[in-house]
Amino acid sequence: MSRVSVKKRILRVQDATRVRKVDVLAAEEPLEIRLNGAPLTVTMRTPGDDFDLAAGFLVSEGAVGSPDEISTIRYCAGATVDGGNTYNVLDVRLAPGVPAPEPRNFYTTSSCGVCGKASLEAVRTVARWSAGDDPVELAQSTVVGLPGRLRAAQRVFDRTGGLHAAGLFTAEGEPLCVREDVGRHNAVDKLLGWALREGRLPLRGTVLMVSGRASFELVQKAVMGGVPVLAAVSAPSSLAVELAAEEGLTLIGFLRGDSMNVYTGERRLLAARPAKGAPGEASEQDAREDVTSGAGNGSAGARSPG
Amino acid sequence: MSRVSVKKRILRVQDATRVRKVDVLAAEEPLEIRLNGAPLTVTMRTPGDDFDLAAGFLVSEGAVGSPDEISTIRYCAGATVDGGNTYNVLDVRLAPGVPAPEPRNFYTTSSCGVCGKASLEAVRTVARWSAGDDPVELAQSTVVGLPGRLRAAQRVFDRTGGLHAAGLFTAEGEPLCVREDVGRHNAVDKLLGWALREGRLPLRGTVLMVSGRASFELVQKAVMGGVPVLAAVSAPSSLAVELAAEEGLTLIGFLRGDSMNVYTGERRLLAARPAKGAPGEASEQDAREDVTSGAGNGSAGARSPG
Repeated sequence: MSRVSVKKRILRVQDATRVRKVDVLAAEEPLEIRLNGAPLTVTMRTPGDDFDLAAGFLVSEGAVGSPDEISTIRYCAGATVDGGNTYNVLDVRLAPGVPAPEPRNFYTTSSCGVCGKASLEAVRTVARWSAGDDPVELAQSTVVGLPGRLRAAQRVFDRTGGLHAAGLFTAEGEPLCVREDVGRHNAVDKLLGWALREGRLPLRGTVLMVSGRASFELVQKAVMGGVPVLAAVSAPSSLAVELAAEEGLTLIGFLRGDSMNVYTGERRLLAARPAKGAPGEASEQDAREDVTSGAGNGSAGARSPG
Repeated sequence: MSRVSVKKRILRVQDATRVRKVDVLAAEEPLEIRLNGAPLTVTMRTPGDDFDLAAGFLVSEGAVGSPDEISTIRYCAGATVDGGNTYNVLDVRLAPGVPAPEPRNFYTTSSCGVCGKASLEAVRTVARWSAGDDPVELAQSTVVGLPGRLRAAQRVFDRTGGLHAAGLFTAEGEPLCVREDVGRHNAVDKLLGWALREGRLPLRGTVLMVSGRASFELVQKAVMGGVPVLAAVSAPSSLAVELAAEEGLTLIGFLRGDSMNVYTGERRLLAARPAKGAPGEASEQDAREDVTSGAGNGSAGARSPG
């Protein structure tokens, strides 16, 4: 049994039928990340790619941006009373001269006004590159195909139903790396850690596709990795759209079937060519102005919570 | 425009059609919670029920358990440079003699072995009551009806598609309180804060229904609120099942249509009476042993990531 999934005996109930089965669950265990020997954070994660998770967390926090800024990562032996190695405690040593990150501002200062423009400043990390000027363009057919490609590349999801997935793709839709985790942020951090290790940061010309929603923090992680396009199966939040607009990211949500909502950066989405014999031509000039709000707009279709 | 949702102009793309629309997004803003004037945490939340969110967070952390342990909660004026009130910074004052909570162990100690049994201890908070001996029993028909009742009680979801929902129900399926938030944990904390304020803790005889998955942290919040039954639309994690078993909670997942998976505490689920004329009788004695694993078991149906 791998540590990525765990088998449990359950009772399956359907109408008047009760059946005992063995079900496969997504594994969730805490990972303590230490930095130069001192506790930094604990995250509830699915075991696997732990070194990438720790490295990607440091990318997200703005602490590192190139592989030579990390000296070593190792599991801590002696983490238990009997001196055993739990594989749930990691220590990251930064290279000489690389400063350890300050604790995130919003945990230590109380003077900032956590609101509007100020709120973004309060919770934001600062990237050492900008994806806003990335000239990459994507064919609409490529974008529409991403959810299927993400699904195809997932290894554990179909067995447990309990994992978030995140995938990095080229502008042509070829998968570079796909990771799964019980935590949506962890899945993206694992991708960023992979990219750091491969010397691929900043991730210019790529698309980050996530299986769930697009929160502020996921947009921020895309920014920290230099990813110019973030696509999500479900809805973005208001602050996710705000940050994407400010950073020049392309943010796509409700990417399902042949449709999507483009919230920011639509310049990177090339128009679809209509099928032969199809009426009309797809161009922005053709776009009707149809300003409606709320329920009943085109994006209200198959929405579901995660 | 309420602060619960935000309107944005978007580009709706479907096949070769591009339409400009106004879309309604779930609002996400940071909330800084201060305790006795000192910064405690910042959470990204959907504005609304902020006092309940702060109080419920303190219930989750084990700091308070009855309404008289909180003296006041107020928004901080003067949180911005110009002295304005952002409604994004709250200060909670505990009643005289109520100790402020220690910072969570796992952020400050590095001696614990974060693994297996030890891992649970490392990340757990300690409840002042136990739901394990709660004798409540639920009719299967009541449980099956909870997702629809949660959905019916949601106010914002249908407009934005971006919110998690959590609802507290009686054993008869009557809604006591329903809350929504971009953060799944926030939605549950808002419920716990409501229950604290109403003097209803511990929440004996109730069911907590959540729209997404059941993580370790959600089970822990149920424990801290004294809720004996947690039901989720999607999958639980391994550690969620482990904690529920240890605390004597009933944990139900994949609650969809007329079916569900019961992971722990099945004694609280009364058998369905078969429809008239239906073959067989529903009882645990009838339950076939059908031990299979992974893909293709009865619970693999409509699984989707959040």
